[in-house]
Amino acid sequence: MALSTDPGITQDELRLAARNHGMPLEALRWPITPVGLHYLLIHYDVPLVNPTEFRLEVKGAVARPLVLTLGDLRARPAVEMVSTVECAGNGRALLEPRPISQPWLTEAIGTARWRGVPLATLLEEAGLSSGAVDVVFAGLDRGVEGEVEQRYERSLPVSEAIGASCLVAYEMNGASLPPQHGYPLRLVVPGWYGMTNVKWLTEVRVVEEPFTGYQVATGYRVRQTEEEDGRPVTRMRPRSLMVPPGIPDFATRDRIAVAGSHLLEGRAWSGRAPIGRVEVSVDGGRSFGDADVVREFDDPYAWCGWTFHWDATPGEHVLCTRATDETGDIQPLEPEWNLGGYENNAVQRVRVRVD
Amino acid sequence: MALSTDPGITQDELRLAARNHGMPLEALRWPITPVGLHYLLIHYDVPLVNPTEFRLEVKGAVARPLVLTLGDLRARPAVEMVSTVECAGNGRALLEPRPISQPWLTEAIGTARWRGVPLATLLEEAGLSSGAVDVVFAGLDRGVEGEVEQRYERSLPVSEAIGASCLVAYEMNGASLPPQHGYPLRLVVPGWYGMTNVKWLTEVRVVEEPFTGYQVATGYRVRQTEEEDGRPVTRMRPRSLMVPPGIPDFATRDRIAVAGSHLLEGRAWSGRAPIGRVEVSVDGGRSFGDADVVREFDDPYAWCGWTFHWDATPGEHVLCTRATDETGDIQPLEPEWNLGGYENNAVQRVRVRVD
Repeated sequence: MALSTDPGITQDELRLAARNHGMPLEALRWPITPVGLHYLLIHYDVPLVNPTEFRLEVKGAVARPLVLTLGDLRARPAVEMVSTVECAGNGRALLEPRPISQPWLTEAIGTARWRGVPLATLLEEAGLSSGAVDVVFAGLDRGVEGEVEQRYERSLPVSEAIGASCLVAYEMNGASLPPQHGYPLRLVVPGWYGMTNVKWLTEVRVVEEPFTGYQVATGYRVRQTEEEDGRPVTRMRPRSLMVPPGIPDFATRDRIAVAGSHLLEGRAWSGRAPIGRVEVSVDGGRSFGDADVVREFDDPYAWCGWTFHWDATPGEHVLCTRATDETGDIQPLEPEWNLGGYENNAVQRVRVRVD
Repeated sequence: MALSTDPGITQDELRLAARNHGMPLEALRWPITPVGLHYLLIHYDVPLVNPTEFRLEVKGAVARPLVLTLGDLRARPAVEMVSTVECAGNGRALLEPRPISQPWLTEAIGTARWRGVPLATLLEEAGLSSGAVDVVFAGLDRGVEGEVEQRYERSLPVSEAIGASCLVAYEMNGASLPPQHGYPLRLVVPGWYGMTNVKWLTEVRVVEEPFTGYQVATGYRVRQTEEEDGRPVTRMRPRSLMVPPGIPDFATRDRIAVAGSHLLEGRAWSGRAPIGRVEVSVDGGRSFGDADVVREFDDPYAWCGWTFHWDATPGEHVLCTRATDETGDIQPLEPEWNLGGYENNAVQRVRVRVD
């Protein structure tokens, strides 16, 4: 992973930023993110898929391999689930030095209502071998990463694959998946960062040795140096974000608000436990007060909403919000640096000029 | 407009690039761009609109001002139209020095099927005054630009507003407009760059003096210096883009393809006249050959498709494509610089390594 201490974003980063995109933070107002506002990271290219030729294979260390059409999947009992997904690299471009990759600020998030077949149903049908260790998920997208030509593949330990309410989803927000979100099928792993929610899912492969593919063994590891093995990126750390108040300056995205009472609003989530507390600071993080938290969805890994009254006085202000989940994990005030720029859940800072 | 000769993209540009996005070029394969892949430029913030409270006003120099609900609009005869829209700033980040604004490369495009009420119908109902000069279109979005607090407003000369098949659209690709594309209403002006396709349209105001609002008199002008008045940005210049062949390198977006026969494909459009010719170069623009052009839509300002056979030999190649419209306007090989970074329709260059 290349690093930069130059504040200027490189041309390589710009090529990624021009095609991928975050969720504009005013879209935090919608409990379910409208399609097209949900964050999007495309590792390689969006494939063009012929739905009549498409097959999902369940294979490897199983008693009864499956080859399923989309019709086969839609004929099985369906489950719906609201899940918040965040890119593991969210916040990367706020790190110093900056890991050179997709240069996310804080917007790489979104929440959708997914519908599909529980992964556990398919694994049960196929019959896992007693020696099964990992389940590997392969997408149709191909590219080169770390100088290795590959298709996109991620894995889950068998216990997570069976127990974590994973969904093989064919619908997002009541319609077929859009091409960029994995049409015709994607894996949804509630609580995990986006990289495990494999798009264009075409193969589920059960293996009896730990999976060591690029996206598990090389990419998506929290470590300080290339030499260090580090630990894998898995579930989302707690985070809270606010709708920036007032109106923006076009060129800088700085905010301008009028003096008086403002109802700040936002959403918070964690992939490890329900949100226990959301706090807001109107003095740049020196002091915090509790926000009112409202849980809108029963699904354990859907975000919750929050509001906070702010009496805005003229001058320059820095607003912050931070979440704590029920394990006690709390967002740090400053980023925790790592080589890949993953899991940067430092508190959001919104600069506002009040006139 | 600030300029930069530094290749590094500034933090201001990054804040824009993280929320706005282009159309990943592999989406040129779809004749109608799926929602969420269409390019998106949000000047200020996406507003949250209550559809029951929403009204469209037609006012100013008219005999019978109108105040219309969404139901009123849907009760009128509807028209459907396929229109290709490109941001006027597409290609800005390829200019040297680089105008500091949304840093587009080449992807700020998309094509949608719009449905709504002809603007001419509403203007006829309202009855234009004999002294009408311009029609001003105001959106619900507010922000600060050029240090002026404003809502987004653009205008058209009366002749264009009546004659150019403009649509007050409430549907995109068969569904209500998504929030980010102007829900509940936007103006569609076929052939014009995106800035005139006003989103969150809430007011149509007929004026008897030329409109001198910020987005017409200050922004969106082709000029070399701030002092120069320049000319307004209006209709799209011809452009052709190709689906980059092969597979990408994740970090650089460079392309790697296998030797042998490739069917290159792409699309081309102009807002001034039908496309007359599309050419492809496989030697970096030294020589060009004609592509096969297929017109898929009757709508005059929808893009057309093209294909070109390429026999790829091992080595490094630079592929180019350029369009000529029926007025004879042809894409230049090198960018034509201007202060705002508008209308850069220089030919696309795609670097491919063939193994």
